[in-house]
Amino acid sequence: MDVLSYRPGPEELAWTFGGVPPVRRVKPGSVLELWSEDAFAGKVRGEDDLVSKVIEFPFVNPLTGPFFVEGAEPGDTLAVHFVSIEPSRDWAASTTIPLFGALTSTHVTAGLQEPLPEVVWMYDVDKAARTVTFRARYSDDQVDLPLDPMHGTVGVAPANLEARSSLVPDAHGGNMDTPEMRAGVTCFLGVNVEGAMFALGDGHCRQGEGETCGVAVEAAMDTVVILDLIKSTATPWPRLESDDYLMSTGSARPLEDAFRIAQHDLVTWIGSECGLDPLDAYQLVTQATESPIANVCDPNYTVLAKIRKGYLPRHDAYAGAHARLRQMSEAYLAEHR
Amino acid sequence: MDVLSYRPGPEELAWTFGGVPPVRRVKPGSVLELWSEDAFAGKVRGEDDLVSKVIEFPFVNPLTGPFFVEGAEPGDTLAVHFVSIEPSRDWAASTTIPLFGALTSTHVTAGLQEPLPEVVWMYDVDKAARTVTFRARYSDDQVDLPLDPMHGTVGVAPANLEARSSLVPDAHGGNMDTPEMRAGVTCFLGVNVEGAMFALGDGHCRQGEGETCGVAVEAAMDTVVILDLIKSTATPWPRLESDDYLMSTGSARPLEDAFRIAQHDLVTWIGSECGLDPLDAYQLVTQATESPIANVCDPNYTVLAKIRKGYLPRHDAYAGAHARLRQMSEAYLAEHR
Amino acid sequence: MDVLSYRPGPEELAWTFGGVPPVRRVKPGSVLELWSEDAFAGKVRGEDDLVSKVIEFPFVNPLTGPFFVEGAEPGDTLAVHFVSIEPSRDWAASTTIPLFGALTSTHVTAGLQEPLPEVVWMYDVDKAARTVTFRARYSDDQVDLPLDPMHGTVGVAPANLEARSSLVPDAHGGNMDTPEMRAGVTCFLGVNVEGAMFALGDGHCRQGEGETCGVAVEAAMDTVVILDLIKSTATPWPRLESDDYLMSTGSARPLEDAFRIAQHDLVTWIGSECGLDPLDAYQLVTQATESPIANVCDPNYTVLAKIRKGYLPRHDAYAGAHARLRQMSEAYLAEHR
Amino acid sequence: MDVLSYRPGPEELAWTFGGVPPVRRVKPGSVLELWSEDAFAGKVRGEDDLVSKVIEFPFVNPLTGPFFVEGAEPGDTLAVHFVSIEPSRDWAASTTIPLFGALTSTHVTAGLQEPLPEVVWMYDVDKAARTVTFRARYSDDQVDLPLDPMHGTVGVAPANLEARSSLVPDAHGGNMDTPEMRAGVTCFLGVNVEGAMFALGDGHCRQGEGETCGVAVEAAMDTVVILDLIKSTATPWPRLESDDYLMSTGSARPLEDAFRIAQHDLVTWIGSECGLDPLDAYQLVTQATESPIANVCDPNYTVLAKIRKGYLPRHDAYAGAHARLRQMSEAYLAEHR
Repeated sequence: MDVLSYRPGPEELAWTFGGVPPVRRVKPGSVLELWSEDAFAGKVRGEDDLVSKVIEFPFVNPLTGPFFVEGAEPGDTLAVHFVSIEPSRDWAASTTIPLFGALTSTHVTAGLQEPLPEVVWMYDVDKAARTVTFRARYSDDQVDLPLDPMHGTVGVAPANLEARSSLVPDAHGGNMDTPEMRAGVTCFLGVNVEGAMFALGDGHCRQGEGETCGVAVEAAMDTVVILDLIKSTATPWPRLESDDYLMSTGSARPLEDAFRIAQHDLVTWIGSECGLDPLDAYQLVTQATESPIANVCDPNYTVLAKIRKGYLPRHDAYAGAHARLRQMSEAYLAEHR
Repeated sequence: MDVLSYRPGPEELAWTFGGVPPVRRVKPGSVLELWSEDAFAGKVRGEDDLVSKVIEFPFVNPLTGPFFVEGAEPGDTLAVHFVSIEPSRDWAASTTIPLFGALTSTHVTAGLQEPLPEVVWMYDVDKAARTVTFRARYSDDQVDLPLDPMHGTVGVAPANLEARSSLVPDAHGGNMDTPEMRAGVTCFLGVNVEGAMFALGDGHCRQGEGETCGVAVEAAMDTVVILDLIKSTATPWPRLESDDYLMSTGSARPLEDAFRIAQHDLVTWIGSECGLDPLDAYQLVTQATESPIANVCDPNYTVLAKIRKGYLPRHDAYAGAHARLRQMSEAYLAEHR
Repeated sequence: MDVLSYRPGPEELAWTFGGVPPVRRVKPGSVLELWSEDAFAGKVRGEDDLVSKVIEFPFVNPLTGPFFVEGAEPGDTLAVHFVSIEPSRDWAASTTIPLFGALTSTHVTAGLQEPLPEVVWMYDVDKAARTVTFRARYSDDQVDLPLDPMHGTVGVAPANLEARSSLVPDAHGGNMDTPEMRAGVTCFLGVNVEGAMFALGDGHCRQGEGETCGVAVEAAMDTVVILDLIKSTATPWPRLESDDYLMSTGSARPLEDAFRIAQHDLVTWIGSECGLDPLDAYQLVTQATESPIANVCDPNYTVLAKIRKGYLPRHDAYAGAHARLRQMSEAYLAEHR
Repeated sequence: MDVLSYRPGPEELAWTFGGVPPVRRVKPGSVLELWSEDAFAGKVRGEDDLVSKVIEFPFVNPLTGPFFVEGAEPGDTLAVHFVSIEPSRDWAASTTIPLFGALTSTHVTAGLQEPLPEVVWMYDVDKAARTVTFRARYSDDQVDLPLDPMHGTVGVAPANLEARSSLVPDAHGGNMDTPEMRAGVTCFLGVNVEGAMFALGDGHCRQGEGETCGVAVEAAMDTVVILDLIKSTATPWPRLESDDYLMSTGSARPLEDAFRIAQHDLVTWIGSECGLDPLDAYQLVTQATESPIANVCDPNYTVLAKIRKGYLPRHDAYAGAHARLRQMSEAYLAEHR
């Protein structure tokens, strides 16, 4: 196994997908040991660190990458297997941000009401106990929530010669903010430019479905991924595979279009993968899909469509890439524990 | 326990919430043993029974009820505890319906493309094995899916002097189509008119989240509910409580507004119930909510916001109504098994 | 000409379309001289009359009617020609209403911000000068705007056994809030129940497109309409015809669906009326349509699709009903001036 | 007057706003005589030139530019005055494009129906008669429509380090597709990067409001603009000024958010410009706004909010830039007629 360890300095962070030169070139099959800064660029460290004071836009949600994957060309698919995702500090932070989030007017859902107050919540992270501790600011409550680390932002350079802010989720991946992007999962991304230009960031210790106030339990992360390349296989929207599920994503506004994209992709994917007529696939998905919302706060909203593999006829998505990467992951972990 | 058994004849079915006289008067605390016809009014019994041929609109999605609950007044809350929901036949049906569903243009998301073909899928229901069997029509697939019976349509008469089609979900409940409406759950509905006028229908043997093609595994049901009345307590949108979760619902278009309603209701509900400041409740819900989509096909779309009771400070929603009804349910089941 | 004069007392007002017995029976071809109260039920008469203090919901937006039109059956079309619409008082009122309007969170676009302040603006109405006078409340401005009287709410009983609040616009008409509903225009409404059950209300001295804050320059009105019946001709969504334009309406959420409904109806209407292939009609409408927004504040949003008659091949919509009613209107006006 | 004439060769076209080096540097106050290719890159020249055959994505909707405006910095506003817009050929073209347009499913409003047929309509352009001639393809109709030339795509480089496809409208301008972008109008664009990087394209001989099928009467254009710079004055969303109107734009999904952005911008703009309290401005705009839809087909939908200057207290938007540019335009035209 080729193993690359990479920890970006502050001046090496990327803020867009596309429009940025690669930080490293890697071969398909490589293991990447990566560190990523939190979405606040590490600047929210206490309750007085209001985003409006400490962040200078657009320098928010930094990315680690991009990585040029040798041999990757438009029309291929990049497989990203998450071996492990672990908070790199013993604290994490969340906030409200003025005119951002689902339960407030925003710059786009524009209104004349006063913005909500800006508040910071600091969380303790206990990796041994696998918990994060929420402490209320203005009321008497403290509770341990399960640690469930994930990456909000995972993607490649977009199509159409575009460069997109790291805050945007779309067909290239990006800021999808789904809790399903956890260790043990393989993410499949359609390649749009030579080298794919993979990057990730926005680690969350945990996140509710929808990321209601717009900000999860944000943390710097130590993350191990294996990158693989599936040649001559296109992937229209990011897909995920776990041991038990096939999952499609959709990112759009309004939210029903995100749902439609994900459902349409799952129907057509299992249709072609399992030899099902499109209407039969439509019927089966109708009765079997799980549809967790990922985010309702970003420039596009994201929804997943999941189906248990056990409900499907024999299939072999991406020629068994997930199972193969799972084995490589086990081998790596056995060696590094 | 007052126990009422009621099985409507074809001429006793209701097609709206509101605008219909009660079929029975019941006291709070009563057990109702109800039979409900399927959403097709029992008319889709084989693969040739296309909805466009056998259904005469608006006679679709029949309701059992309404029941006049003695003492119920606007400003009260009706608690509906589901003791059991069991398919009453050994078959069930699903279909596509022209210009209905999430992956097609509709009369509202209007377009110029040809409608999708109209197809019927008949399912075997095995209550002993707890399965329903999907058989593909145009491809080679057969699979047993878990039986997970629920009611798509549960509600009371709406506010504002309105009568709403049984196909519509809104603040009065109605056709929410959430798989969470299963046995063991208590549904709380705000009372809008004297007597509340409770009704239910639209049994599903199971349903995916979103009810993508617009039609679940539709079945006639034998259902036992206990009705209770919580005086002088308003409920703005339907809420559910299970042993493990508090849940709020929202029904609206676009889908993000359904999400906003449910999240807003959950934040304000747990805020007042647990003594949490609204911003603290907003933050806790952001990190802890599960947000399953219910339907993306009905006149309003429905989303739930769920939170584990274990993540909340001490609380006692509706003065412990769920726990009390759960006990009554156990007593009833012990007697009737 | 049959002429009916009708001025409802406070106890004769209707608050829904559907679910209400008729106030009068009229023959097709009748002239109706009607008085309608303003949308505040006449209760906002000065700057201190805040809606939250003086209005008891649901008693808002009162209707004059419904009128049973003899011979009207489902599948027919009711033609409503507006002969004249004149403010019946020398003042009018507008307000903000908490959690209502386009630039604020609402009960459906739910949020946690504080509501906007509740403010009343009183307008002078000068029928001779044809102006209404806006006076700023918190700044130094006064301006005369052109008087352009219209009815926000015009409709018939809805389909599907429903009764809908007078605040709702939908396929039955209702609270569409389009400035195009002015004198000289014919409105075509599909009949859903025997007698059609026509009603109107919500007079506006004028209104911007979108009715941004949710409330126009609200006024009681003296209105003359001629009702006519077009047998065996269905109308899926309300249509309007002026001397120069054919217009379709759509009412839905999100706003793009209102646009789609109106455009789809205009394309199919002129397609069948003018013998145009659907794709040719689609192309012509694409280059020629005007698409004024009506409201972005009501339970459904409303958009119109208008096309100049001069751009169309020879046609004769509803067998020339508009031209015929225009002549009747001229005759009536000649007699009554 | 500095006058620059520029006609790009095929290899000089730009396909994004942002991410492209400037083709020329110009001083504020310069006149630019520009030629722009049509949105099909000139490749649809007859009824057999289907977009799916002749266009290679993403090489669609080419831009003339970008122009580096000397002295322009983030926080400034670029004023673009349209002196004249004239079709440069005697023909123009429109088409349907599979899965594009308002009355069809798309890649985002995803569905399972068959796409609409792909059809080309060729138009005659008669500059002397000021008409374009529509000829039906599948039915018997021919009609002259008024020539009303405009640019669908006008913008600067976006903020946030992004590069956006020329097909996208957003806060930087871009593909807004509003018929109001015609000769005699000044467009104000907020500057996001040094030099502003102005570009335009997508000439339309005319267009209906909403651009329903997604494609207007597309034409190469000879266009004269004057560029001016307003230092230290930010413009959050593109604004337009004509002799009679102030106009704000909003581009977003769903369509109501585009409406909200435009209305919010108009309310706050006239509020600060005319010294009106925000609630007074909200009320005045509610009664006086015109709200023409621009497009309901592009990646964001666009709506305008217009108000007659005559309804406003004394004001002097952008220190009289429109009036000054109008005079320069007259001088230029006097010289060049």
